[in-house]
Amino acid sequence: MTKTLRTADVADLALGAVFLATGGGGDPYVTRLATEQALRGVAGVDLIAADELADDARIVAIGGVGAPTVSLELLPSTDDPLRVLRAFESLVGYQVDALVSFEIGGANSLVPLIAAAGADIPVVDGDGMGRALPEAQMMTYAIGGVSPTPAVVLDYAGNVATLSTSDTPTYERHLRQLSLAMGGMVLTAEHPMRGAQLKQAIIPDTLSFSIQLGRVLREQRASVPILFGALRSLFGHSIYGDLHHLYSGKVTDYSSRIIGGFDLGDVTIEGFVQPCPALKVAIKNEYLVASLGDQVVASVPDLIILVDYETGTPINAERLRYGQRVSVLAVGCPEFYRQAIALQVVAPRAFGFELDYVPVERLSQWHQPLTA
Amino acid sequence: MTKTLRTADVADLALGAVFLATGGGGDPYVTRLATEQALRGVAGVDLIAADELADDARIVAIGGVGAPTVSLELLPSTDDPLRVLRAFESLVGYQVDALVSFEIGGANSLVPLIAAAGADIPVVDGDGMGRALPEAQMMTYAIGGVSPTPAVVLDYAGNVATLSTSDTPTYERHLRQLSLAMGGMVLTAEHPMRGAQLKQAIIPDTLSFSIQLGRVLREQRASVPILFGALRSLFGHSIYGDLHHLYSGKVTDYSSRIIGGFDLGDVTIEGFVQPCPALKVAIKNEYLVASLGDQVVASVPDLIILVDYETGTPINAERLRYGQRVSVLAVGCPEFYRQAIALQVVAPRAFGFELDYVPVERLSQWHQPLTA
Repeated sequence: MTKTLRTADVADLALGAVFLATGGGGDPYVTRLATEQALRGVAGVDLIAADELADDARIVAIGGVGAPTVSLELLPSTDDPLRVLRAFESLVGYQVDALVSFEIGGANSLVPLIAAAGADIPVVDGDGMGRALPEAQMMTYAIGGVSPTPAVVLDYAGNVATLSTSDTPTYERHLRQLSLAMGGMVLTAEHPMRGAQLKQAIIPDTLSFSIQLGRVLREQRASVPILFGALRSLFGHSIYGDLHHLYSGKVTDYSSRIIGGFDLGDVTIEGFVQPCPALKVAIKNEYLVASLGDQVVASVPDLIILVDYETGTPINAERLRYGQRVSVLAVGCPEFYRQAIALQVVAPRAFGFELDYVPVERLSQWHQPLTA
Repeated sequence: MTKTLRTADVADLALGAVFLATGGGGDPYVTRLATEQALRGVAGVDLIAADELADDARIVAIGGVGAPTVSLELLPSTDDPLRVLRAFESLVGYQVDALVSFEIGGANSLVPLIAAAGADIPVVDGDGMGRALPEAQMMTYAIGGVSPTPAVVLDYAGNVATLSTSDTPTYERHLRQLSLAMGGMVLTAEHPMRGAQLKQAIIPDTLSFSIQLGRVLREQRASVPILFGALRSLFGHSIYGDLHHLYSGKVTDYSSRIIGGFDLGDVTIEGFVQPCPALKVAIKNEYLVASLGDQVVASVPDLIILVDYETGTPINAERLRYGQRVSVLAVGCPEFYRQAIALQVVAPRAFGFELDYVPVERLSQWHQPLTA
């Protein structure tokens, strides 16, 4: 079924996307404004389900690559998403039938909509991560065997580069360095696919799910103990696993450094009622590992989400502050990421943690009671 | 007049190129072997004088970009120069009529010859520096207003990138980062020109001059006091200024660090006979500023050359060792670099030195006597 995404949906999509970004993905505020502006000029953008695509349809993934913090200061142009699509089409010599997102988490859920509104083509309902993750080889498209190139890179000043590499880790390395030279944040059109390839590799329906999620967060805005049931029910009917409450408390320590283009750090949360063991969350752009002392209670690729305890509003890592009252939630990742071939690139060891991935539902024996 | 460059010329060309590289440009030893191999298979490569090119001829500059030290370990492929030319032709959709060097100094004087032998097209007798310099915007082509792109970048593994930028400093920044990701050394085809543009921007006749220079160094191999007259006479009949003897002595201190992709350091030389003020040469890939105490006696863009005192063999900066007996020579740069527009990008201040450029012939009032 093809749905139409309209201006009125964008705020909910963006809010859901911050939740699914698990702390990373960048603040979508400015991209949300740009998307609303782009959609205002057209009737809407068609959201096409992956299984409705023709097997020989031409799809390309479009989004931003770089340090999310840069996009807070280097404001995105509303013309650039269409520009990078046109540059890609000119490079490959064919017209693209539909666009798709790198990741549902953060601003990259929105970028293809801006280009699609300009080109009058649909966006596929789904994405290549089902969350946010920092590197190209972690995308389901790459894991599914899609070649990353030919790819086009566009910077804020209109400079263009193209890349042609043998594999996605090499592509990621070249692109990451280039993005540093090009101002820290670039747009790319990459991982071109046929419909048949996309169907094997996409996390489906995440755009429409993110809109639903954002709507629940907005309409049922309440403290976590009140909101939790509605969220749990929503995830229970999705491609994700169950929602778990891991912890609620106050931020008592937060550190973050920028290393190698990543935001590295951790946050410590202590329960409202003492004594109670503190929860620690390790961050590498995203919230990756949650532990109580030596005991891991959730880890990547499962989703770890920090939300404001009073309102349920998801909090990006760069917005964490001492004294914030937060809840730490976890969601089982889509099954795609629990395959051995996927865990090679997204399990904790792929991020430098010396631990094996255990699904969150088998880890979280201990839950702090869901009360203030 | 079109000359033909043959296998037997390559060793002299490479030796002259080390002299003209003023300490940088990389050791051309392996590239020399690759060039000799490429030329052995053909009758030779035509060296065409710039003023014989048709005004609408299509020329592209080909060479290596990156850290010279990398090329000592990551051996160049003999196929890659032709491969980067073919990738460029496929990008722009036309055939190239002739190739030209970035710089006569070091291995980049040879790289276009390898591609030209494979493609059976001539190489222009001349280059874009008349020496070696570390960055793209310092090339005469860039100073002469030639756009750096469309450009093709090829790495050792066959990965290809293209760049399209508005100006050469931006191109240099993008390319430098990309070269780091691509293994530290890449080949590029860049600064495509028409014959009419090239004639305005080239340092002419440097390939045939470098062969003559290499021949003198080889045939008249002798200590500097004996060799000096022949070299001075050769430079006296060239597009360069006069040759000066600045200093002879022993290397008593040498330091070098790799910072931001450059080899930064300095070398101190003390006269054979004490007491005598020591000469210091500041290095940023190339020998850039020579001083006696506070008194500058030569600076970039004039050429500063260190040669072995006993044999006259030029010494790359990375080959400097404590105790070496050396002579420090200087040559006035081609007039092109003494234009105000050129000095903006190649005078000492462009390298971070707080001093104005004064031509070497107006600086060197004090010369150490040319005796042992």
